[in-house]
Amino acid sequence: MAKKKAKKPTPAQQARKAKLTAKDKKTLNSLIGMADGVVRQASRGRAPYFEVPSRSLSNVKYSPTKKIIEMGSSKNKRELFNLSQARTYMQTLLVGRGCKELIEQGKTTSIRGLYYLLKHTIDGTREETFNDQGDCDPVIEDVEVTLNALREELHVYASNRGAMVGNIQLIDSGDEIDCSRMGSGGYAIPSIVEEEVMQFVKCDADFILHVEKDTVWRRFNEDKFWKEHNCILTHGNGQPPRGVRRLLSRMHNELGLPIYCLLDNDPWGYYIYSVIKQGSINLAYESRRMAIPGAKFIGLRSRDYELCELNPSVTIKLSDNDIKRANQIAKYPWFEKKKRWQKEIKKMLSNGFKLEVEALISKDISYVTQEYVPERLAEANFLD
Amino acid sequence: MAKKKAKKPTPAQQARKAKLTAKDKKTLNSLIGMADGVVRQASRGRAPYFEVPSRSLSNVKYSPTKKIIEMGSSKNKRELFNLSQARTYMQTLLVGRGCKELIEQGKTTSIRGLYYLLKHTIDGTREETFNDQGDCDPVIEDVEVTLNALREELHVYASNRGAMVGNIQLIDSGDEIDCSRMGSGGYAIPSIVEEEVMQFVKCDADFILHVEKDTVWRRFNEDKFWKEHNCILTHGNGQPPRGVRRLLSRMHNELGLPIYCLLDNDPWGYYIYSVIKQGSINLAYESRRMAIPGAKFIGLRSRDYELCELNPSVTIKLSDNDIKRANQIAKYPWFEKKKRWQKEIKKMLSNGFKLEVEALISKDISYVTQEYVPERLAEANFLD
Repeated sequence: MAKKKAKKPTPAQQARKAKLTAKDKKTLNSLIGMADGVVRQASRGRAPYFEVPSRSLSNVKYSPTKKIIEMGSSKNKRELFNLSQARTYMQTLLVGRGCKELIEQGKTTSIRGLYYLLKHTIDGTREETFNDQGDCDPVIEDVEVTLNALREELHVYASNRGAMVGNIQLIDSGDEIDCSRMGSGGYAIPSIVEEEVMQFVKCDADFILHVEKDTVWRRFNEDKFWKEHNCILTHGNGQPPRGVRRLLSRMHNELGLPIYCLLDNDPWGYYIYSVIKQGSINLAYESRRMAIPGAKFIGLRSRDYELCELNPSVTIKLSDNDIKRANQIAKYPWFEKKKRWQKEIKKMLSNGFKLEVEALISKDISYVTQEYVPERLAEANFLD
Repeated sequence: MAKKKAKKPTPAQQARKAKLTAKDKKTLNSLIGMADGVVRQASRGRAPYFEVPSRSLSNVKYSPTKKIIEMGSSKNKRELFNLSQARTYMQTLLVGRGCKELIEQGKTTSIRGLYYLLKHTIDGTREETFNDQGDCDPVIEDVEVTLNALREELHVYASNRGAMVGNIQLIDSGDEIDCSRMGSGGYAIPSIVEEEVMQFVKCDADFILHVEKDTVWRRFNEDKFWKEHNCILTHGNGQPPRGVRRLLSRMHNELGLPIYCLLDNDPWGYYIYSVIKQGSINLAYESRRMAIPGAKFIGLRSRDYELCELNPSVTIKLSDNDIKRANQIAKYPWFEKKKRWQKEIKKMLSNGFKLEVEALISKDISYVTQEYVPERLAEANFLD
């Protein structure tokens, strides 16, 4: 059944064959520039170093004008001739080499794949290039910030999670995908959704409803909510992965679609909203590509317990950790000055319990799709 | 943007509207039969009880003829007038009622949704019907075995995980899905894939390659492996969820497609294979619908370390728990008498390390798609 063994092209052949996009060429040039810098320093007899933007909390700030979390301008030197930095210095170059190889061959891999691609025992020593994945991941992030390139532009992808259905047609890797004809499963959102891979063909939808969990998404899909309300329906299986965030951001900015987030009434739901809207502290350097300051929070809200007349038995007591996280989130600069958010968080704390979206099923199986969301959409009743 | 509030149909209207399939009617009759039994016992003045097939390990056995894990015939009485059983007795009836409601309305929900649908404080008491999800899940399984109905037939679904691409066209909920035109993301495999929801239209593929992880799946999809080798490519994001297992089983049995599993060389990889092939101990009552005794293991194998000349640095030391699990798995009746499997497991233990599929990238980015799998397919070199 298997055809005769495919003749393996050499990496050089693959590189010639791989069509480099304009963005690939730009990323490749940055990578080569990084290596050229080393050569230049060495040939001048100087100790080689890079400047790596600092990813520490102190170098992350919220921009009230742009309404996203951004990195500051502080940089750290990473030197070869510094005993405490020599190892990460070499790892940084290794990751650069790995990404160059991926781009040249027109291939992508996971962070796990990149780790294995680069992991080896250094000749003549018993030293490993990386001890484990945790040793490699921060270096990948360093290369991203140093080159000001998204991980996806370096041809490294995160996990695939999340799905989409609705009134949109797009092209993914040359295939035309009609998200209004995706059955019950939906279109699995890939982790790389840059314009080189994905182009929007046609979109009739009026807005995007993003829900937290696949199980809730399924309720909306089964009830054909997206048909009745002419929208796009997405989920990110909890905290949405980079591909889902980037796709939401592209659809919001390029197609002008409002985004409404239906998340749990708990600190985790607040946090997911915060990341979608302002970006995350850890990936602050990607906010400009991923954060969606215009995103709105449609619920659940703490007052819904009374408003929807829910039974006390569907509430879940806040844990000590929930209370701690809620207080932290209330102090985030982007929530701090928003009276309605302060009220929301305070109300949850005084309730003493959290609520999952699924709890609405206790009203009726389709309460969430037929009453809860339609009513809030009709009243434009959101938290911002 | 939102249309005027949809008038909510009453449950009775929904029931009339929902088209019940033949299978729905059968499941509904079983549920009603269960309730009728209670009425019959009560009206005769007898103490009501159910007989629930025992799901304990002692009632699970491996059938060497069918080559699947099956449940034995032992049953437990669950009585209303028994202080230690009254609560689960009532919970069992509640779950039955919830499933009846779902089927009648033509809707499905998650186990989380069913829990919320049924959770309430019992009138006049401070007693909750269920304390938490863990209180509800075993009762759902009890109803499944008692009625001999799959969870999906009760309209309750598991999480959506896993994706598929390849030379197959199918219909999912009325939409025709061409899995050869699914871009980089693929078709998200839903959790309910019974023939009422999903019908196969056309399949040109020669076999199915099932891989463990989405990241490995992506390498195969990117390299268009399924085009070159005319196959279907699936993954289950680790231990495949019920929807993926059931779909593999249907494609294997109805379309006659061989299934080759590409899994990690570790006890977890062995276990995933074991579940795909023989079924799981916990869900033994579903083996007949989900187990695929014909599935083959294509790798990774313990000998691949030498065969593929891998670098020692890509190996991962076995933990104490890995060693314990490997020894347990070696003693499973379905592995116990297979010399090649015994050799495989022994070799891993003597290696002292495990290997992930991703480790093959250290040979070449596309080594796994261009050499490893094609060579083994050409030689029909599998473990059974």
